[in-house]
Amino acid sequence: MGARAAILVTGTEVLTGRVADRNGPWLAEQLRRFGVDIAQVTVIGDRPDDLRRALRDLRAAGVDLIITTGGLGPTADDLTTELVASAQARALRLDPELERQVADRIAQLSSSRKWDLEPQATAASIRKQSLVPEGATVIAPVGTAAGLIVPATVSGEPPVVVLPGPPFELQSMWSAVVADPVVRAALTGRAELRQSAVRLWGTPESELAATLRRIEHSLDGLEITTCLRDGGELEIVTRYSPAMQPAYDALVAELQATYPGTLFSADGRTVDELVADALISRQLTVATAESCTAGLLAGRLTDLPGSSAYLLGGLVVYSNRAKAELAGVPAELIARVGAVSPEVAAALAGGARDRLHADIGIGITGIAGPDGGSPDKPVGLVYLCASGLGVERTHTLRAPGSRADVRARAVSVAMHMLRRLLDEARVPA
Amino acid sequence: MGARAAILVTGTEVLTGRVADRNGPWLAEQLRRFGVDIAQVTVIGDRPDDLRRALRDLRAAGVDLIITTGGLGPTADDLTTELVASAQARALRLDPELERQVADRIAQLSSSRKWDLEPQATAASIRKQSLVPEGATVIAPVGTAAGLIVPATVSGEPPVVVLPGPPFELQSMWSAVVADPVVRAALTGRAELRQSAVRLWGTPESELAATLRRIEHSLDGLEITTCLRDGGELEIVTRYSPAMQPAYDALVAELQATYPGTLFSADGRTVDELVADALISRQLTVATAESCTAGLLAGRLTDLPGSSAYLLGGLVVYSNRAKAELAGVPAELIARVGAVSPEVAAALAGGARDRLHADIGIGITGIAGPDGGSPDKPVGLVYLCASGLGVERTHTLRAPGSRADVRARAVSVAMHMLRRLLDEARVPA
Repeated sequence: MGARAAILVTGTEVLTGRVADRNGPWLAEQLRRFGVDIAQVTVIGDRPDDLRRALRDLRAAGVDLIITTGGLGPTADDLTTELVASAQARALRLDPELERQVADRIAQLSSSRKWDLEPQATAASIRKQSLVPEGATVIAPVGTAAGLIVPATVSGEPPVVVLPGPPFELQSMWSAVVADPVVRAALTGRAELRQSAVRLWGTPESELAATLRRIEHSLDGLEITTCLRDGGELEIVTRYSPAMQPAYDALVAELQATYPGTLFSADGRTVDELVADALISRQLTVATAESCTAGLLAGRLTDLPGSSAYLLGGLVVYSNRAKAELAGVPAELIARVGAVSPEVAAALAGGARDRLHADIGIGITGIAGPDGGSPDKPVGLVYLCASGLGVERTHTLRAPGSRADVRARAVSVAMHMLRRLLDEARVPA
Repeated sequence: MGARAAILVTGTEVLTGRVADRNGPWLAEQLRRFGVDIAQVTVIGDRPDDLRRALRDLRAAGVDLIITTGGLGPTADDLTTELVASAQARALRLDPELERQVADRIAQLSSSRKWDLEPQATAASIRKQSLVPEGATVIAPVGTAAGLIVPATVSGEPPVVVLPGPPFELQSMWSAVVADPVVRAALTGRAELRQSAVRLWGTPESELAATLRRIEHSLDGLEITTCLRDGGELEIVTRYSPAMQPAYDALVAELQATYPGTLFSADGRTVDELVADALISRQLTVATAESCTAGLLAGRLTDLPGSSAYLLGGLVVYSNRAKAELAGVPAELIARVGAVSPEVAAALAGGARDRLHADIGIGITGIAGPDGGSPDKPVGLVYLCASGLGVERTHTLRAPGSRADVRARAVSVAMHMLRRLLDEARVPA
């Protein structure tokens, strides 16, 4: 096994769920690219005893590197530097060069944001953020907090990399972290670890489990994990050493043979990337008209850079008047079949196409809940239509879960409808 | 201190960041309402040794209850039940009643989704999902996985509650979990723990740190954590026992006196809730016209149930033609000042208002990046305008970070502009 790392995320706001952790996932992916596997992510609040215990457990977990995120701010609940130093019996000293850098950053921020800072309070904040454990290497601050690389004091223990919580600051420091000799030494002897994903749309997990059991004998050395995303997409991610590439290729071939209708990606690309690539290479354009998802599909279609090449725009038509005036859905049709109906979904798709002069239009109308359902049209019922290039695809979704679940699921279904429409309407070469 | 719980999230897809954990935050909030504090969240992959070690560390962490999520599926990487049983030296037995329930659920799913299941494979999956540790209580499955409540075998150790990974299934089981006598006994003697939030918009964290240091002597018994959200919103969350209510009230009064211009919520309501409450109580309507955020603001304005009362709809105007045709921005204006300009933001706000017959319109145009920037108009530059009710507010944002950061920040700024416009345009009683 290659080198392994653990991540300690600090902050009561993350622990109690008020803020989602974005650093653990990002660090895990960076480490994997560097050939380092991730063993554990621990999320802990801003309480000294808990932090001390979590740090002790991770130091005993047999990992090669610990990375902490957060807890470097100016307020009293920011404790990371102090506790990392004390775990290794290192004194804290004021770093005058760092103090100057932090002061400069705060002066810059203060002038660009027109803050009126109290000098004495500011000086105390700067001093707190300029304390460094004896023997640690400082990574210059991007915001107001520096990063630290703290070597192990006991042989066999992992060094600790201390990074700030704001994702942009942490990410900006990463190249300095992986260039550091202490970090490099901790991760030497690492083996390359490959990771590849296969994605299916519409195959139940139990079927996949059966396939994997059937070919179990050929899976030695492949670490396979499966997960169901957005209630419909089955993702199979495999991690393996380069020597196992033939076994992995055989697995992919087997999955392709078993699931020709539902396997939509064998090269790691997501549905978003497949749709973007198809639209760009064929110079096609898309427009949306959304009721219950209210812009979330347009938002997702523009997640990737370069999306202005294919997304011309969209209509958010929450009210019936907007459906009629903006998307041209006949008021008579809404009166006759209701706003939540396959007919209105089709009219929305056509309206989006027409009004935005796009090749393909997608219409979504449904009941996201929690209120507004009826026995006929329950919460979670969503009608979708994608049309264009001479093709029309429709779908009736009955999504379980919360309002947010229903909306996210509808957006995912729409992405797959678009993918399949593009497949079906493939222009002959 | 009251009862404390730890959460063990299993799944390589969560550990490696491919899927965001939604269960830890949800459980933390439910436990807090129940008076139970959360000590730690551990995220671990689908590897037996890591899972075993993480479970052992949490059993030794001095908590009163452990909740695991995930790892209950039919595939071989789903290991939670087996490892929880083995940690407590409990045998696994097949539960025939559960086997029947799981088989029923799969038959239902299979018929509604038109799956064509292989009977033998299905039977093996059902059997695996019907194994129960000796002495555990079963919570009937919502999807295909049951929940389990496994009492402690050694006195002083915490019981373990085993729940499935899909959030809707886990949430549906929660009432059965808190009603269970083993769980109730583990959490008895719990003290009520209150949690309240104060929110500021535009005050730097270092200023707040200074204020808290100045009144430090009056903060005993209040556990205060601060965090900066979306690069602009400063959230101060305090946890305290009922006896400390007067100290908390004094803190809030102090903050209100110190930050009259930036403290916008002292009662826990978010900016989303404040905006929704103001719009509903004053029967006002909103419409959006978005370029770089492409529907994300409309999506956020409809996150809350009941939003059809105020959000009429929106325009996603990615292309310049859409800006002109849909929102009525003069093509001549775009040619003269550029699509990313304060003038176009104002025209978009006006266009949204006119075209959707809304009281208030919001326009957003900017450069989300990573490409498309210039020295004059760098990536991260976003112009916003909110207008209506005789008021116009404009804002020039220079957001750091990634494409996703810039878009999320712009949406948050827009929410606060809307909040302030509603304040400014308050209708006399």
